[in-house]
Amino acid sequence: MIRLVSDNREYLLSPGETLETDLGVLEVPDGVEPGDIVETHLGTEFTAQALRGPDLFTHFDRTGAPMMPRDIGLVMGHTGISDGDRVLDAGTGTGVLSAYLARAGANVTSYETDSEFADVARENMAMAGVADGVTIRTGDVTQALDTLVAEPPFDCLTLDTADAPTVVEQAPQLLVPGGFVAAYVPFVEGTRDVVEAAREAGLQSIETYETIQRTMDVGDRGTRPQTAGVGHTGYLVFARR
Amino acid sequence: MIRLVSDNREYLLSPGETLETDLGVLEVPDGVEPGDIVETHLGTEFTAQALRGPDLFTHFDRTGAPMMPRDIGLVMGHTGISDGDRVLDAGTGTGVLSAYLARAGANVTSYETDSEFADVARENMAMAGVADGVTIRTGDVTQALDTLVAEPPFDCLTLDTADAPTVVEQAPQLLVPGGFVAAYVPFVEGTRDVVEAAREAGLQSIETYETIQRTMDVGDRGTRPQTAGVGHTGYLVFARR
Amino acid sequence: MIRLVSDNREYLLSPGETLETDLGVLEVPDGVEPGDIVETHLGTEFTAQALRGPDLFTHFDRTGAPMMPRDIGLVMGHTGISDGDRVLDAGTGTGVLSAYLARAGANVTSYETDSEFADVARENMAMAGVADGVTIRTGDVTQALDTLVAEPPFDCLTLDTADAPTVVEQAPQLLVPGGFVAAYVPFVEGTRDVVEAAREAGLQSIETYETIQRTMDVGDRGTRPQTAGVGHTGYLVFARR
Amino acid sequence: MIRLVSDNREYLLSPGETLETDLGVLEVPDGVEPGDIVETHLGTEFTAQALRGPDLFTHFDRTGAPMMPRDIGLVMGHTGISDGDRVLDAGTGTGVLSAYLARAGANVTSYETDSEFADVARENMAMAGVADGVTIRTGDVTQALDTLVAEPPFDCLTLDTADAPTVVEQAPQLLVPGGFVAAYVPFVEGTRDVVEAAREAGLQSIETYETIQRTMDVGDRGTRPQTAGVGHTGYLVFARR
Repeated sequence: MIRLVSDNREYLLSPGETLETDLGVLEVPDGVEPGDIVETHLGTEFTAQALRGPDLFTHFDRTGAPMMPRDIGLVMGHTGISDGDRVLDAGTGTGVLSAYLARAGANVTSYETDSEFADVARENMAMAGVADGVTIRTGDVTQALDTLVAEPPFDCLTLDTADAPTVVEQAPQLLVPGGFVAAYVPFVEGTRDVVEAAREAGLQSIETYETIQRTMDVGDRGTRPQTAGVGHTGYLVFARR
Repeated sequence: MIRLVSDNREYLLSPGETLETDLGVLEVPDGVEPGDIVETHLGTEFTAQALRGPDLFTHFDRTGAPMMPRDIGLVMGHTGISDGDRVLDAGTGTGVLSAYLARAGANVTSYETDSEFADVARENMAMAGVADGVTIRTGDVTQALDTLVAEPPFDCLTLDTADAPTVVEQAPQLLVPGGFVAAYVPFVEGTRDVVEAAREAGLQSIETYETIQRTMDVGDRGTRPQTAGVGHTGYLVFARR
Repeated sequence: MIRLVSDNREYLLSPGETLETDLGVLEVPDGVEPGDIVETHLGTEFTAQALRGPDLFTHFDRTGAPMMPRDIGLVMGHTGISDGDRVLDAGTGTGVLSAYLARAGANVTSYETDSEFADVARENMAMAGVADGVTIRTGDVTQALDTLVAEPPFDCLTLDTADAPTVVEQAPQLLVPGGFVAAYVPFVEGTRDVVEAAREAGLQSIETYETIQRTMDVGDRGTRPQTAGVGHTGYLVFARR
Repeated sequence: MIRLVSDNREYLLSPGETLETDLGVLEVPDGVEPGDIVETHLGTEFTAQALRGPDLFTHFDRTGAPMMPRDIGLVMGHTGISDGDRVLDAGTGTGVLSAYLARAGANVTSYETDSEFADVARENMAMAGVADGVTIRTGDVTQALDTLVAEPPFDCLTLDTADAPTVVEQAPQLLVPGGFVAAYVPFVEGTRDVVEAAREAGLQSIETYETIQRTMDVGDRGTRPQTAGVGHTGYLVFARR
């Protein structure tokens, strides 16, 4: 799909699609390319743009609260995600993390227990143009560990599931030497469980981060952090084989 | 180069290199592969590992304070960096950001005014195996804007330079529609200058973030944020053409 | 006034006052004392309680956003407010800070330019039972500095006004040796102005704090910082003669 | 005692005391008053100053890490400490909190299990001039609850002890209606225990805060939060009878 933007208006459309808007009918040419100008029949110009990561966060169909770009970024930064990485991701959820990683060249195998959620996530991957980079398996990752251990090892495990400790226990079997686990955990108690599982598994460089991100207001009266605060999302636990 | 790890010891060595350590002489085979075990002549086993992003932060020769993995990650998350992206980066500095982006498949053109720093950064790119993905130009990016505007447009501009506002002014000419600027700025006043330049340039979705990251201690006595705080690094300003 | 509490219901009433509530008519005896039980004519019991600082924040008539208990507390902690202190406060606003300080035994002289706001604040002081401890002068503190310098010196200046730098310039004349200035400033630029005024005035121990306070959720699913964040209130600048 | 200050030098001395300094012999007159100038025999002038709260934090003999002025202030702000309040404090420790509260007019009964620590704290109270306002009882507050319940009720309980939950259980018997508990707890798990004890005791308005305080650098290059972060101190749980 492609993003069509005019001032504060934006649509995600497929090449060949037609949309009736209050600014006129928007016919997307079959061969539309990023950078092209597409005019409605009333003459309003839209610019075609390639989707970028934050657009996926905004436009994916949601089956729950997706991981935010900041947390996805922290996972990418602390694991050093790389083109060609093999990543095991669980659970898929809306799939924003999987899509981001695939956009950075990773080959992602993602598990989602809910088959309807898995279908939505597969459509989201198609929308993002990363269907080739992300394989979504319907099922419980903790039931699949024997299978997974028999596959080639992963460079990263990204875990956003209450079962994270069970997966972490198998991290030494699942990861290449030097590979990373990244677990996103909303509560302190769950965070502790992941850290303890990582210690018991003999993982290295175990670090737990909490990240507070604030928007700064740059206004006429001066500069300050926003008075409406950004709240807690989750703790991030990183560990390395 | 390859990372050789034994317990808490790690070395970065090239295939064929020999290192005398207190654990014995370590001869790295020419054809060493990640996952291989390399023994010293005294029998201590080292595991060969591919370098990952955080290793670059640790092992690059430094010509200043490099951007931290958390801030690099935030740049990646908020811009949605992607395989195939064309990125303009200034200034290069130690080059950790450039290397991270290249590892995620981006083609990076980076400017560094100091020619010695530029040489160190080029060696760092070689060490990281991303010399093909990062072109480091010695020079002042603000002097090169006419040239850059004539090149194909960029998907992202990543700016860690006091001259960021001057580059931001040209962002509409430098970026593809929908492309992102990410500026890393240590001080509030400089942050304001970047935001105002972005507004004057007519950029969209201008957001300024401050990020406080804390390490959590998960210990025998309980769980708490670390008593030794992590301090401020920089503000991050994002904007979009 | 006295606080009358029954489950989640609370009223602030004067001795002798009668209130019709949906739980029945509440007649407050003339000689009511904290700890007394007062029954409505329908038999619902209310407990009489002395007002405490946080009740003032909740029940004072507001003429603007009053300083929050956390910021008032930080002023008290960093200046070490004491019984018998002479405090110059400007501007009064709703008067919560003045009332807190008077409750801790300070003699507060407070300036408010808006005469209607000053009247409301005087009523608030009466409600809090600290009318003797707080003198609210209607007027502009920066016009009164000559007068104030001629009065006995103050132990603390508490400033929540855009004119704070002008007052800070006179701090050496207004304060006892070792006395404190505390300025509450919403924006970075204004904070800088206060700090520079304090430096030019030759004040000591100049410290600027930003305080992020988060509510922790202790729930059935675990413990975590609240997902709805508490935002920025103001920077606090402290300095000492 | 009195504070004698000259430039960056400060001494805490008693009236009548003589101190040999490298700036000359400093003889403190018996009748020294705050604001007096005291000269050394070499002619260096020292200004006599009354001690304020932050001086207690700096100069008290320490028997452990004392509560910081910011946390003391938050206790004062969220409980609205007042002249005439009866406060039960445990454990005393260095006694900075007790001294601050007494300076604000409270009558404090404080428990310290370690008899040597209690002696140090008593000397600290004398130094602060609040020996009349603070009674330090050597002993375990949890063993004294029966006695305490039989005494007149308290307006506040301030708890900085691992036994906080045991005291909180008795809060309804110890407090006046509307009175506050404030517990300072370093770890999340202990925080949870206090919150649960408060819930079981039927206390109201239970709030847990975490406070991150940062120093702002206002320098020639610009304004920013300090790069050396201030770490975690403790969680603060407040509840009300």
